[in-house]
Amino acid sequence: MPAAGIDVQAIERDALRILELLCRQPSISAEGEQLAETAELVEELLAGAGFETRQLTVDGAAPAVYGELASSGDFTLLLYNHYDVQPVDPLDLWETPPFEPTVRDGKLFARGAADNKAELAVRLATIRAVREARGELPVRIRWIVEGEEEVGSTHFDEIVRRNVDLLDADACLWEGCGALADGRPEVCLGFKGTLAVRLDLQVLSGDAHSGLAVALPSAPWRLLRALASLRDSEGRIRIAGFHDVVRKPTAEEVEAIAAQSDSIERELREAFGIDEFVDCLTGVALRERLMFEPTCNIAGFHSGYGGPGVKTVLPAKASAWLDFRLVPDQQPDDVLAQLRAHLDREGFSAIELTPLVRAEPASTALDHALVARVARVAERVAGKPPSIELRSPATLPIVASLHRHVGVPGVSAPDNPVYFGSAAHAPNEHVRLEDFGLAVRFTVALLEELGEQP
Amino acid sequence: MPAAGIDVQAIERDALRILELLCRQPSISAEGEQLAETAELVEELLAGAGFETRQLTVDGAAPAVYGELASSGDFTLLLYNHYDVQPVDPLDLWETPPFEPTVRDGKLFARGAADNKAELAVRLATIRAVREARGELPVRIRWIVEGEEEVGSTHFDEIVRRNVDLLDADACLWEGCGALADGRPEVCLGFKGTLAVRLDLQVLSGDAHSGLAVALPSAPWRLLRALASLRDSEGRIRIAGFHDVVRKPTAEEVEAIAAQSDSIERELREAFGIDEFVDCLTGVALRERLMFEPTCNIAGFHSGYGGPGVKTVLPAKASAWLDFRLVPDQQPDDVLAQLRAHLDREGFSAIELTPLVRAEPASTALDHALVARVARVAERVAGKPPSIELRSPATLPIVASLHRHVGVPGVSAPDNPVYFGSAAHAPNEHVRLEDFGLAVRFTVALLEELGEQP
Repeated sequence: MPAAGIDVQAIERDALRILELLCRQPSISAEGEQLAETAELVEELLAGAGFETRQLTVDGAAPAVYGELASSGDFTLLLYNHYDVQPVDPLDLWETPPFEPTVRDGKLFARGAADNKAELAVRLATIRAVREARGELPVRIRWIVEGEEEVGSTHFDEIVRRNVDLLDADACLWEGCGALADGRPEVCLGFKGTLAVRLDLQVLSGDAHSGLAVALPSAPWRLLRALASLRDSEGRIRIAGFHDVVRKPTAEEVEAIAAQSDSIERELREAFGIDEFVDCLTGVALRERLMFEPTCNIAGFHSGYGGPGVKTVLPAKASAWLDFRLVPDQQPDDVLAQLRAHLDREGFSAIELTPLVRAEPASTALDHALVARVARVAERVAGKPPSIELRSPATLPIVASLHRHVGVPGVSAPDNPVYFGSAAHAPNEHVRLEDFGLAVRFTVALLEELGEQP
Repeated sequence: MPAAGIDVQAIERDALRILELLCRQPSISAEGEQLAETAELVEELLAGAGFETRQLTVDGAAPAVYGELASSGDFTLLLYNHYDVQPVDPLDLWETPPFEPTVRDGKLFARGAADNKAELAVRLATIRAVREARGELPVRIRWIVEGEEEVGSTHFDEIVRRNVDLLDADACLWEGCGALADGRPEVCLGFKGTLAVRLDLQVLSGDAHSGLAVALPSAPWRLLRALASLRDSEGRIRIAGFHDVVRKPTAEEVEAIAAQSDSIERELREAFGIDEFVDCLTGVALRERLMFEPTCNIAGFHSGYGGPGVKTVLPAKASAWLDFRLVPDQQPDDVLAQLRAHLDREGFSAIELTPLVRAEPASTALDHALVARVARVAERVAGKPPSIELRSPATLPIVASLHRHVGVPGVSAPDNPVYFGSAAHAPNEHVRLEDFGLAVRFTVALLEELGEQP
């Protein structure tokens, strides 16, 4: 099926070699290490493929690598990737060292392999091969590879704002999807927003003997009551105004949910060893909830003693890390204000709030022409209809920045050789080599598709 | 006032020297270090003062030192102390190293100085001096110095059970009190019991991406709801049966509470930087609550992320450390069963309970003859009426063991040179040298008092 002169297996071998090179860089953005070095490597790889490159920097940010590859075609495609990776702890759970990429059982193990270096490698190897086979690409490529995705893309919005001309395009491929367990390729049209906030409460100048708990205030009890007040006994979020702007799915979206693959349900059950989901959710209702309901999650709660044995202490302080996943038309700043008002109203004014991450929800409309073109290519390449995810339950803050400043529609397309078990962010992160083929063939076919008149 | 030949200042100097010797031993029972060596030092010190000594051991226990000093008097007085100390962390908050006893500003700083080595030193120096001045003591002394108090006196009950003959006595002086800020010496008649229990809940086989919080169960939310169910909105404990056997103070006890010093109230406010106590408690109501109300305290709650910045995770596990302080006639095993039944009834059967410490409440009756004799001596020596604490809000598990197996009445008497600010268990633990005098004079006078017919 690929165009004449395209050797898919050769591209796969190329991509694997590039991937190993990238995975030897311990580019952990949370620890600020090897970011400049990895940016240089990425820039060199892009330049070697014919891109005109530069680094886009703002004060305090890890550099983003930018490249442009000319074409006589009319269509401009923007690619987004990130070269940074998550921390590696707990290190002792890794079977091979996280920055010594190792192939075994048909898988390549390394931190960053799945998130997001394999897709970068596949895209690069494919673009190189197509250009070589055809003399030039059917579309103009603009590519931005940032170094702060794993710490919330802190400076990405400013980088986009300062470089609108460079990033303008007809469509964007965000960080991509793979195929599901049933073989259906996935196409994702958007992401939830996020408000992550830290709650701190101190009620005593220092920890007290727990015998005094009968008379002294308790930080963990107070914070626990405050958190308990956020949801009713059914788990529904009680913060006034929180649900007011939540949009219901349209008739077309309901139809799309019904047409989705249901393999996610089995995969989640198995991955987390659970018999049932909350509220006994299943099928369409589960998938709708994942895409259309906001969350209020406790990512962490810490107070007092937590070691072996016992220490009978009355803790002076307690802290919690909350994150909300937001859906249209919720805005992180509005939710922060609603949370503050709720705590004040319920008698918890003493709790300090520190916002940590704010990102708006952002999606491409189901009826956008780009969606149909990507879906058509995915079905042709995979031999199965794609499963359309209207909105990932996760957050990719760059999507809102690209929407806001350059107005480029985008999707997560199946050009990423990852699967549900890739263990992104976890020990023994890996990609399956067998998944490279689909990603390469999809990329080749999409470049052809976008080079033609729609 | 002391008997002829007793030089109080010489005893104070002796006690300080012994104290420095003891404080150089890093006898941290939680870490199992230097316990045998410290036991040997204590045995040597007792032997040097004329005691017939031995070590009382059971498998796995730090040795308890035992000594007996004969007398032609009829009265047998049992002394209890411990030579072990708390861990020293956070070490960076110590102004001088915790095991290099240092005198500055009239205070001796060292881990264990206040808890409980100074009292051991004062008792030893005083007994030695009285014996030298009189040829023999007016009472027979039996003394047990254990090495596991700071880890819950784990083996003390068994040691007592195996050595009933050695520990039988007419009265016991437990670990003692000092004087309050208003100069009134304190006498304490008993201690609350304790049930410390760990709660563990796991709802997923591993941590999940927090975007999935809309569909997956959450360990911190579940555990937080379970804990919230333990107390009503007024803070009253909701566990069925918990309050059924709680005894109200008698008319005589109410009178004793009214006669207590009120300096504890100011000291607590200042120590913890609070404007008011829970339920706006003050005066007699505050003191009654401290002595007669049980508690349900969260000593620790830990789940998920707790570091700098943010990690948007849905935690698979959550754990809490609870401790209950118990009053007559509450029994730790009953409360454990009530807690289990409560959690099951409220839908939290999945929470695992691990009991960590169990100790019964135990007190000597206010109208016991020993109390009047100790109070009389305290008033004579201090020139002020003692403040009688009917029951400490803390727990001293050895009291219940001595009650149960040898039936010896006891008190905490003002023979301990400590004060509210001694920072026991905290960095910069210390005793004030000015407090040694009262402790020495009280001990001399009490030995005389007990040697006479009541």
